[in-house]
Amino acid sequence: MTKVLNITTRSRVEFIDVTDRIEQVVKEAKVKTGVCWIFAPHTTAAVAINEGADPSVRRDIINWLEEAIPRTGNYQHLEGNSPAHIKASLLGSSRAVIIENGDLHLGTWQSIYFCEFDGPRRRKLIVKILEG
Amino acid sequence: MTKVLNITTRSRVEFIDVTDRIEQVVKEAKVKTGVCWIFAPHTTAAVAINEGADPSVRRDIINWLEEAIPRTGNYQHLEGNSPAHIKASLLGSSRAVIIENGDLHLGTWQSIYFCEFDGPRRRKLIVKILEG
Amino acid sequence: MTKVLNITTRSRVEFIDVTDRIEQVVKEAKVKTGVCWIFAPHTTAAVAINEGADPSVRRDIINWLEEAIPRTGNYQHLEGNSPAHIKASLLGSSRAVIIENGDLHLGTWQSIYFCEFDGPRRRKLIVKILEG
Repeated sequence: MTKVLNITTRSRVEFIDVTDRIEQVVKEAKVKTGVCWIFAPHTTAAVAINEGADPSVRRDIINWLEEAIPRTGNYQHLEGNSPAHIKASLLGSSRAVIIENGDLHLGTWQSIYFCEFDGPRRRKLIVKILEG
Repeated sequence: MTKVLNITTRSRVEFIDVTDRIEQVVKEAKVKTGVCWIFAPHTTAAVAINEGADPSVRRDIINWLEEAIPRTGNYQHLEGNSPAHIKASLLGSSRAVIIENGDLHLGTWQSIYFCEFDGPRRRKLIVKILEG
Repeated sequence: MTKVLNITTRSRVEFIDVTDRIEQVVKEAKVKTGVCWIFAPHTTAAVAINEGADPSVRRDIINWLEEAIPRTGNYQHLEGNSPAHIKASLLGSSRAVIIENGDLHLGTWQSIYFCEFDGPRRRKLIVKILEG
């Protein structure tokens, strides 16, 4: 089962919690056990899993990335968005989550984030489920 | 097949080699070919694959992370463990390993690590196998 | 289906575009839908997905990694290649790509890279496909 979600980002750098939307896809698929991939088909966006309860955690992650990979520097790529490509490569374009009892088997504090690094833009997020 | 392993960490930051325990799960599952996921259901821990032979390699990885993401800084999250969340996001909460001939298809020098960034704690590690 | 590709790297640090070779494996497997893993069985190499159109993007990613993880430093591992182990751990040893209509379901600008961090060497790259 493959499903494509549309994501509209509103800032240059932004982590959007997509856990509820992924959960809905898993429930509609009626798969009891398996593995679910969340894949960003972009080179300046990524997928991450981290704390969803306190929004200051994602702000601290973003702030660290912004400091470690500064917006201006000795970059060769003429579009000027090399820092976004570097951040996307570090976090990675996809994450896997296990499915148990027809639901995402996440830890208590885990949320799934679509990570925008070169927004605002209209983006896609692909959800793929394998049963087993 | 899904199996939950218990991990007890003994330091704040620590990489624990879990290769033998994952291999045992794969052998008990009697799966000849497939893919195995190792998933940490935590927001301040991760899973990594790297050299297991010389323990100085994992110390060098840990030391780099500790320098790049210092314990004290301009963090907003009040629990004080933002550096652990950032490290966990960078390494990622899961790794996939291919299964061939009923065993993990790792390279000669590869070991699988549970990466603790906010210990000591009692942790879980979820192992999921898809046959195919 | 599991297939092992041989890769010959020519520099110490180098990103080699392997998208065409992975696509050929997927086509030969005649799998219509599923998931494909690209796994590097090495501790000083990794797999990444990022822009393939403009080679300056991969040069900017490599330059950032070389600056963030310098070649010389206070490393304990006596082989002297700890920076390569650290880079490989950050990017990760594998990537998953979704298969749709018998082909890799990548974004318009995405290419798959074998990332060499301690070359030149002869390397392996394992491709595993699960149908579903």
